[in-house]
Amino acid sequence: MSRVYNFSAGPAVLPEEVLSQASSEMLDYQGSGMSVMEMSHRSAVFQGILDEAEADLRDLLAIPDNYKVLFLNGSANHQFAAVCMNLMKNKKADYIITGQWAKKAFAEAQLFGDAVAVASSADETFSYIPDCSDLPIREDADYVYICENNTIYGTKFHTLPNTKGKDLVADVSSCYLSEPMDVEKYGVIYGGVQKNVGPAGMTINIIREDLITDDVLPGTPTVMKWKTQADAGSLYNTPNCWDIYICGLVFKWIKSMGGLAVMKEKNEEKAALLYDFLDASEMFKGTVRKEDRSLMNVPFVTGDADLDAAFVKEATAAGLVNLKGHRSVGGMRASIYNAMPKAGVEALVKFMGDFEVAHR
Amino acid sequence: MSRVYNFSAGPAVLPEEVLSQASSEMLDYQGSGMSVMEMSHRSAVFQGILDEAEADLRDLLAIPDNYKVLFLNGSANHQFAAVCMNLMKNKKADYIITGQWAKKAFAEAQLFGDAVAVASSADETFSYIPDCSDLPIREDADYVYICENNTIYGTKFHTLPNTKGKDLVADVSSCYLSEPMDVEKYGVIYGGVQKNVGPAGMTINIIREDLITDDVLPGTPTVMKWKTQADAGSLYNTPNCWDIYICGLVFKWIKSMGGLAVMKEKNEEKAALLYDFLDASEMFKGTVRKEDRSLMNVPFVTGDADLDAAFVKEATAAGLVNLKGHRSVGGMRASIYNAMPKAGVEALVKFMGDFEVAHR
Repeated sequence: MSRVYNFSAGPAVLPEEVLSQASSEMLDYQGSGMSVMEMSHRSAVFQGILDEAEADLRDLLAIPDNYKVLFLNGSANHQFAAVCMNLMKNKKADYIITGQWAKKAFAEAQLFGDAVAVASSADETFSYIPDCSDLPIREDADYVYICENNTIYGTKFHTLPNTKGKDLVADVSSCYLSEPMDVEKYGVIYGGVQKNVGPAGMTINIIREDLITDDVLPGTPTVMKWKTQADAGSLYNTPNCWDIYICGLVFKWIKSMGGLAVMKEKNEEKAALLYDFLDASEMFKGTVRKEDRSLMNVPFVTGDADLDAAFVKEATAAGLVNLKGHRSVGGMRASIYNAMPKAGVEALVKFMGDFEVAHR
Repeated sequence: MSRVYNFSAGPAVLPEEVLSQASSEMLDYQGSGMSVMEMSHRSAVFQGILDEAEADLRDLLAIPDNYKVLFLNGSANHQFAAVCMNLMKNKKADYIITGQWAKKAFAEAQLFGDAVAVASSADETFSYIPDCSDLPIREDADYVYICENNTIYGTKFHTLPNTKGKDLVADVSSCYLSEPMDVEKYGVIYGGVQKNVGPAGMTINIIREDLITDDVLPGTPTVMKWKTQADAGSLYNTPNCWDIYICGLVFKWIKSMGGLAVMKEKNEEKAALLYDFLDASEMFKGTVRKEDRSLMNVPFVTGDADLDAAFVKEATAAGLVNLKGHRSVGGMRASIYNAMPKAGVEALVKFMGDFEVAHR
């Protein structure tokens, strides 16, 4: 067995300790005589896995008691619609457009009501976060929506927008558990787990209780009504048991590392290695305004498409994989999530340095 | 490691060979240097897994070229709504009610249009399949809906209903791949995979191409529009990669056993062991009309709640687990899916015989 350094934007690298444990428990989870994949979701042993996962997540993020945690089958795309179906009481919502995923969520909202883009960084290929200190938020807007970390463009909101008292809804798919959050500043936090938490196929939603109601848009599928799931403890339908199990192992791994404050330090340290290199390089350039840089996703270019392609090819051969940038930005992108070891970023920076010398 | 015989209705037993392979490939899938859980869904290696899974499924079920196969994040509950959103052009649909899941699908359809129950076996606790040879199907019904195998009540449609030319939509969650199907008799076949195919969190939909259109109900989430997914080869959103991988391993396992005709023989043999015992027993009774019995889910009772409880308790201690019946039927239920070995059913029948002698 030979592991690579996997810089995929998602699905993405998971902690090796988690994979090893999942492998060893595959045929017999802790004396149950079966795999987690084979367990009834109504069994005591699975309920234990679910309860422990929720408790550990609450602990990590210091989630207040008046917020519910929901583990939901599906993807962030399902939540693009569910956010509207559950929250658009006035059929008005204000979106801040900082990339592809915010755009998709915004387009989805237009299926359900009057959604308005109150800010956007489309004018400069989403390479920055707009000033959100005084936006034209509507008096009767149901919520203000952001994608907090932009996987494709490599930006992050380091300051949350001034929502003028409206509830903030944030898609945190690509920064989930990368650092502490002040949950009380949000009405809804949700994200697909497949970037920084677990395997694809589930979102985790953290929702302030008063936003979970029976008053949803007509035609809301029962399974997408948050109240359905909140009332059933995420067991209205058969949940993605395997995903909850793996996420639970990741939560324990983060706790064993020292929690989210330590995780943030480690992430800052890794990101600094790469950003410092980019800032000093004459060949490679970061594409994002410095103050808006993501700790998780680092896009960079050489400015020469052939050189970019050569870099990706040679890096792959050296065991540094999935560095090709998203088609809408081009160039390269290194996603350096929680589970990417510092040694992986060091290897990447060393490789970039060597490549720069060789191809100067 | 000590494996039990797991009679869970779902999530349920998986082939030990599949679990062993998944365990051994967990940290390094076939030299890729990563787990399937860590792979970009846009990578060549994952596309290979997806393509092979689809090809094997097409092979197993002899799916005609004019049917699309979709691997969809979510659960059967999502499809209860999606069926309506995608098919209710006239806003009229006719449902045959043979149990809990058909009832739930029917209730969901009432959120979207004029859904009518054209037959039901509710009058006898869903212990039989109604005569569906001449139902009052409406001239302008968009489709006729069945749940083909009823997990809770242990019945199965051994003859498909006469739909009078309307498209048949079938939820096959608990009989998927248990025997060959004549796909052309259906407009839509779908099922949650967590009973007979793979881990929870995904449905596989097999849909005749002409039923996949842009003409969906207003407010249909983009991700739930079948055309969105068909056009994107099930990759519109990040799919449940792990689930597709495990399902693919199960498809290969079924092929290695000889395909669905052989699987059906094996299932008939296992079911006969149990039904023959029930028919001869003076203590245990099957709850279902003989000609409508499921090959997959076998509910039975002693008629004495205390004795039922003692049976479940002693069976569990003997390594025969998850035999408690669904709360709506009571008693016991043995789910004997593809992956339940004949030895498991033999052990159950022997245990029942011994129990009957001991508690006579």
